[in-house]
Amino acid sequence: MFDKLESRVRSYCRSFPTVFEKAKDFKIWDVNGREYIDFFAGAGALNYGHNNQHFKEKLINYIAGDNITHGLDMATKAKEEFLKNFNEIILKPREMEYKVMFPGPTGTNSVESALKLARKVTGRDTIISFTNAFHGMTLGSLSITGNSFKRTGAGVPLNNSFAMPFDKYLGDDVDTVEYLERYLDDDGSGVSLPAAIILETVQGEGGLNVASFEWLKRIEKVCRRWGILLIIDDIQVGCGRTGTFFSFENAGIKPDIICLSKSISGYGLPLSLTLINPEYDLWEPGEHNGTFRGNNPAFVTASAALTTYWKDNTFQNETESKAKIIKSSLEKIIKEHPEIEGELRGRGFLQGIACGVDGLADKICAVAFKRGLIMETAGPDSEVIKIMPPLTIDETSLKKGLKILEESIISLKKEVA
Amino acid sequence: MFDKLESRVRSYCRSFPTVFEKAKDFKIWDVNGREYIDFFAGAGALNYGHNNQHFKEKLINYIAGDNITHGLDMATKAKEEFLKNFNEIILKPREMEYKVMFPGPTGTNSVESALKLARKVTGRDTIISFTNAFHGMTLGSLSITGNSFKRTGAGVPLNNSFAMPFDKYLGDDVDTVEYLERYLDDDGSGVSLPAAIILETVQGEGGLNVASFEWLKRIEKVCRRWGILLIIDDIQVGCGRTGTFFSFENAGIKPDIICLSKSISGYGLPLSLTLINPEYDLWEPGEHNGTFRGNNPAFVTASAALTTYWKDNTFQNETESKAKIIKSSLEKIIKEHPEIEGELRGRGFLQGIACGVDGLADKICAVAFKRGLIMETAGPDSEVIKIMPPLTIDETSLKKGLKILEESIISLKKEVA
Amino acid sequence: MFDKLESRVRSYCRSFPTVFEKAKDFKIWDVNGREYIDFFAGAGALNYGHNNQHFKEKLINYIAGDNITHGLDMATKAKEEFLKNFNEIILKPREMEYKVMFPGPTGTNSVESALKLARKVTGRDTIISFTNAFHGMTLGSLSITGNSFKRTGAGVPLNNSFAMPFDKYLGDDVDTVEYLERYLDDDGSGVSLPAAIILETVQGEGGLNVASFEWLKRIEKVCRRWGILLIIDDIQVGCGRTGTFFSFENAGIKPDIICLSKSISGYGLPLSLTLINPEYDLWEPGEHNGTFRGNNPAFVTASAALTTYWKDNTFQNETESKAKIIKSSLEKIIKEHPEIEGELRGRGFLQGIACGVDGLADKICAVAFKRGLIMETAGPDSEVIKIMPPLTIDETSLKKGLKILEESIISLKKEVA
Amino acid sequence: MFDKLESRVRSYCRSFPTVFEKAKDFKIWDVNGREYIDFFAGAGALNYGHNNQHFKEKLINYIAGDNITHGLDMATKAKEEFLKNFNEIILKPREMEYKVMFPGPTGTNSVESALKLARKVTGRDTIISFTNAFHGMTLGSLSITGNSFKRTGAGVPLNNSFAMPFDKYLGDDVDTVEYLERYLDDDGSGVSLPAAIILETVQGEGGLNVASFEWLKRIEKVCRRWGILLIIDDIQVGCGRTGTFFSFENAGIKPDIICLSKSISGYGLPLSLTLINPEYDLWEPGEHNGTFRGNNPAFVTASAALTTYWKDNTFQNETESKAKIIKSSLEKIIKEHPEIEGELRGRGFLQGIACGVDGLADKICAVAFKRGLIMETAGPDSEVIKIMPPLTIDETSLKKGLKILEESIISLKKEVA
Repeated sequence: MFDKLESRVRSYCRSFPTVFEKAKDFKIWDVNGREYIDFFAGAGALNYGHNNQHFKEKLINYIAGDNITHGLDMATKAKEEFLKNFNEIILKPREMEYKVMFPGPTGTNSVESALKLARKVTGRDTIISFTNAFHGMTLGSLSITGNSFKRTGAGVPLNNSFAMPFDKYLGDDVDTVEYLERYLDDDGSGVSLPAAIILETVQGEGGLNVASFEWLKRIEKVCRRWGILLIIDDIQVGCGRTGTFFSFENAGIKPDIICLSKSISGYGLPLSLTLINPEYDLWEPGEHNGTFRGNNPAFVTASAALTTYWKDNTFQNETESKAKIIKSSLEKIIKEHPEIEGELRGRGFLQGIACGVDGLADKICAVAFKRGLIMETAGPDSEVIKIMPPLTIDETSLKKGLKILEESIISLKKEVA
Repeated sequence: MFDKLESRVRSYCRSFPTVFEKAKDFKIWDVNGREYIDFFAGAGALNYGHNNQHFKEKLINYIAGDNITHGLDMATKAKEEFLKNFNEIILKPREMEYKVMFPGPTGTNSVESALKLARKVTGRDTIISFTNAFHGMTLGSLSITGNSFKRTGAGVPLNNSFAMPFDKYLGDDVDTVEYLERYLDDDGSGVSLPAAIILETVQGEGGLNVASFEWLKRIEKVCRRWGILLIIDDIQVGCGRTGTFFSFENAGIKPDIICLSKSISGYGLPLSLTLINPEYDLWEPGEHNGTFRGNNPAFVTASAALTTYWKDNTFQNETESKAKIIKSSLEKIIKEHPEIEGELRGRGFLQGIACGVDGLADKICAVAFKRGLIMETAGPDSEVIKIMPPLTIDETSLKKGLKILEESIISLKKEVA
Repeated sequence: MFDKLESRVRSYCRSFPTVFEKAKDFKIWDVNGREYIDFFAGAGALNYGHNNQHFKEKLINYIAGDNITHGLDMATKAKEEFLKNFNEIILKPREMEYKVMFPGPTGTNSVESALKLARKVTGRDTIISFTNAFHGMTLGSLSITGNSFKRTGAGVPLNNSFAMPFDKYLGDDVDTVEYLERYLDDDGSGVSLPAAIILETVQGEGGLNVASFEWLKRIEKVCRRWGILLIIDDIQVGCGRTGTFFSFENAGIKPDIICLSKSISGYGLPLSLTLINPEYDLWEPGEHNGTFRGNNPAFVTASAALTTYWKDNTFQNETESKAKIIKSSLEKIIKEHPEIEGELRGRGFLQGIACGVDGLADKICAVAFKRGLIMETAGPDSEVIKIMPPLTIDETSLKKGLKILEESIISLKKEVA
Repeated sequence: MFDKLESRVRSYCRSFPTVFEKAKDFKIWDVNGREYIDFFAGAGALNYGHNNQHFKEKLINYIAGDNITHGLDMATKAKEEFLKNFNEIILKPREMEYKVMFPGPTGTNSVESALKLARKVTGRDTIISFTNAFHGMTLGSLSITGNSFKRTGAGVPLNNSFAMPFDKYLGDDVDTVEYLERYLDDDGSGVSLPAAIILETVQGEGGLNVASFEWLKRIEKVCRRWGILLIIDDIQVGCGRTGTFFSFENAGIKPDIICLSKSISGYGLPLSLTLINPEYDLWEPGEHNGTFRGNNPAFVTASAALTTYWKDNTFQNETESKAKIIKSSLEKIIKEHPEIEGELRGRGFLQGIACGVDGLADKICAVAFKRGLIMETAGPDSEVIKIMPPLTIDETSLKKGLKILEESIISLKKEVA
């Protein structure tokens, strides 16, 4: 059916060749009733698991009550409540002051709105992004995305951007902030003063590359020194993925614009936010818009996610504690299976192993799938096994999943031997 | 609350200054219980009305049953069913053969995917669009959108596109296809052979400008002659808005790529399709992707919309019959109120009045809102009153809404006098 | 030798396959002593003929006296004298006030400087050019040039420009200024308010298409109404080619920027000027530069050309009188040889015949060359025979050349018959 | 006169505020008879001095004999002779095989032709250039030029290029080739495989930054490994400026394309060449052209320069020997005047002192001018005193000029003290 009717562009269904039907929390079942542990979490859209019971009832009640479903950017009760919750539960306690923009319900829409605004505010063209960044597939976001396969898909040159080296891109010894500063400082460098610097604190698609807090602080300082806007794309690593709600909290930086999407709705429903330093909220009404920017059922589950998990530190603490299990398990795997030439990558609930052996990561994921574990790879050559379970997974199941991973590696070794 | 927390970019909430809470079919209620007739239909996303009872139960059951909510582009039962229904109910009976792509759940995502594919297939850069086109707000779609306010928002030059005159752009006497052919035929015209021509058959945002079927046929012929891909953006005027499921059916043309969104989910949930002539389905897996491209609850309501309304011609016939009421009512208003200098625009359930008096259309909409009718304006100077009710509205209510419109005009006249 | 050592890019040497050695006035001789009448005039660089005796002595004396040859943009006596002459002989009598810029000694350099300045002055990106325009081969000039073969040579998309229809592009009945105004007037047209409109009053390369004075006046009015800079590229048709010094004098317009090159040095030496309305001379020192912008020997011959030919109307009157001979001869040819499907094109000393028969114009030029006449073709399909003798040619020789042209046509007819 | 009539864009005349009249070899005289030693050499266009006596007579004879002056790209005797000489005196002895293209008589024209060809040959868009590169002022060349003041002059974003760090850009310890390789090797770097890498072996305008031979060899290796064309812009540092005819001879590399201009005519007359690896000479006839690409008097002096100076090694040896005087003198100055915080820069007859004190270099040049020495500054902040005399200067005068430089420094010190 899919082969016959769906475009060749589909991809995940090729890695996970079955038809899925049901899902709950960290488990998925296919039409044959086969159960899978989910270490993929909708590419980061399901931080609170599938069909989270806390939100589900609220969602059903909302729909059943004939409340507003589609609202463009009209004021609705559901939106009002979300704004209130987001302000009181997320922004205020963190002493953050931002205007909330609903730019269309996908991550790339949030990024495109951020780029527009940064260019408007500064009157400049260039955006500085980083090697191995991934920001989305529409033309503006693609121009700041590193992956050459994705870029080539544009069919036209991608411009008005400059890819600087990410933290540790040139090895642990080379200071890439110095490099950036050299370019900005030198009037002959060939790189114009940019409107913004955009970055992910952990590059999810790019291979789980982690920016150190120190590096982030220095990038912020560069932005302040030259009057450049700092945009943090927290689409994949925000909403608790690294422990804290925002991935950059512990770095102590204050971005000018923050992009959120994926898990912000809590339930896997399309929703995006662009958070804007009020000083820079210079939009004209309607200057950026979109039909689905007011996805009200998503506001309901988004509110529920905030009130359920973020009113105190419990959830964050649990996440951080479970992340240690991931870390130690991966370290153990790397150590005990040196032939995979593994290198630990990532932070919090987004960790993985970069394999030095060509094509191995994909094979491991394929075997793991057969053994009931759903995982994807990342990195320019799909060389990184990416562990990204729902944050709500219990310890036992987390360990079970990690065990399947190790068993998959062992089974592949046997096969080779 | 909204003022304090939401970005200045919000716009519709300024035209409709209240907080909405409930909605059903063609009615909306605000938090004070005030009722409005909806002649706006979520900018075309609610062709089957708000919270359509036929789909609602299916949606609730789907959610209640813990079926897959978020699925990226993995195969799911809900998607399979939708593909089957779409093929059997829509494509087959119309003798259309297309591969279905899910490009991310917003219209602009569908357009961006269409542009990429056309450029890939042809190896060319330029896209020919038309004056007063609207295709979306991300950088690629914006480059083929006419509105200068929206375009300026990009903050960088918009390129690789050329805006040709739409049907009747230069008056009824000037043949704009001849003009287009002159440019294509002449190796010195300064316009490269394009990858694609993209158009809306009725320009919704652009002012309800209608392309005649004859013009559409000739544009198709131009595409065939020069090997140019024909992309129809049916995001706003597809899904029955003009009567037929696709807006171009009666023109007898076969586009190479079709963009669908807005009402395709039936329930106002974010969903988009890109339909591709199988011959041109040259994507590599994952060459265009997006986190929310598999919005499974939307597949469920989308399937329900197809099975409920499109299995035979009843719905289409009803729509066409009610569209005549709109037409005759607007003609009557134009005739009886010559001082608004009205001109009938549009087709089917997307009609309106272009007002020759500066600023009048906005005023009429504002008064109508106070009288319980929700309507928006269109056109480069917001000069067109746009009538776009749910297709499911009953005749009595349709007439009631049209009466409020006329009363609003009369009340404004009195005010002036 | 040329085949072995010179790049394939060479072209004129293919049309005129001999090795040239000497030249005087309107005659050229090859190494075998064969004499040719020159109806080509260095593509317009030799309006005063080859090695004009009036300038030659001055040039030799200048060189012999060890005066400054290469001066960048330093002040030199030769430059001072040229500026004085240009001001007193050309600008003042025509009540024109312009600042003179020396932008590098080629036409395309002048055009590039004009585009930069227009963008700087207005803060806008777009340049409106016209179908079949030719402005040069460097990237900026190429982006406003119509010819698709030349454009494709860029190897990258050409952007920030929009090609409007030239006068009579759509036939004599369609008013192309109305078309332009429609686009500018409509905020939804997809064409941004441009920095400048650039045009040639007679499109030399584009096929000898003539803009009427009325059309030019209306274009100027459009520029004034919208605050757009008017740039006249008088590189090929200035310096007397159409009779008056500037080609637009009789149209009564006042361009904001004028590009001059080709015959401005009088002797075929590389030199270019950009004339700038003083109000818009907003350059920073050195913002546009170039190594050869002060070609001092060229200043000497340029001064000589002005003092010799432009102190009164004699030269202009003679040119206009001889142009009538060209016109009547071509009309006669067209009438008496209907099988060439000829159409008169051009103005002044830049006239020609567009041939309706594919490939014929090239054949005629090839035969003419064998008969001792040098001529080139123009137009997107090389369909126009281009008559462009030195303005200094005497009547007898002019008629002789025109006779060779007619004989070539007759001989081709015989060949076919 | 200049103030009143010439555009504000003029610049050198501001540094050298007098009116020049005569020049011979390394001396220039102004209208008041004041004599200056020329350490500027027409920005590199006068390597053989002003009005070189060896060429002058040939030039005068050529003009006097009514030989072809302006020839577009027609075959002429003067061009034939130049091609023969260039092949036999320059190419053959160096075992170089190149097709010669005449792209228009300015350096930027040669660069633009090189970029077009590289893009055509490879079918790719991106050009990799280097920090502080200078390649010209037309749009294509500007896009690969580093200086932000020049770049901003474009008025539109400059695209399809990427500025990599030049040799030693990040200090002596950082290997910038490794950096480049990292970007090329990584499919996620955000930089597409380029059409070409273009570089100057010594960056004249950029601050006399020297690429080591080792670095050049490694860049060539990078080009070979990835199938990238290597373009050497030898416009300023070719024609013997560094000793050898081409600046890269001692590095032992074989560029795919070489740009020559400035001193190639020998006499300061506008002329440019683009040398093309025959394998890549894929131009269609006329795909790049220009009115003044056949400047025949310049061919005559160019031939004379080759036959006079390059038939054996004498001239090169003399240049190299005199370059040592420059080097040791500058080293002495730097050592004896530590308060200028001088750093030696450059190679061969293009050396200078980078001054650590803001604005000092400009002041030194201004004082030197008053003392009879013409010199310019280079570098993004005009921080480098640039010593670039004619190569033909005699030792005594060279030392005299260097002495004036030192005296100027001393006099400035006194002033301060």
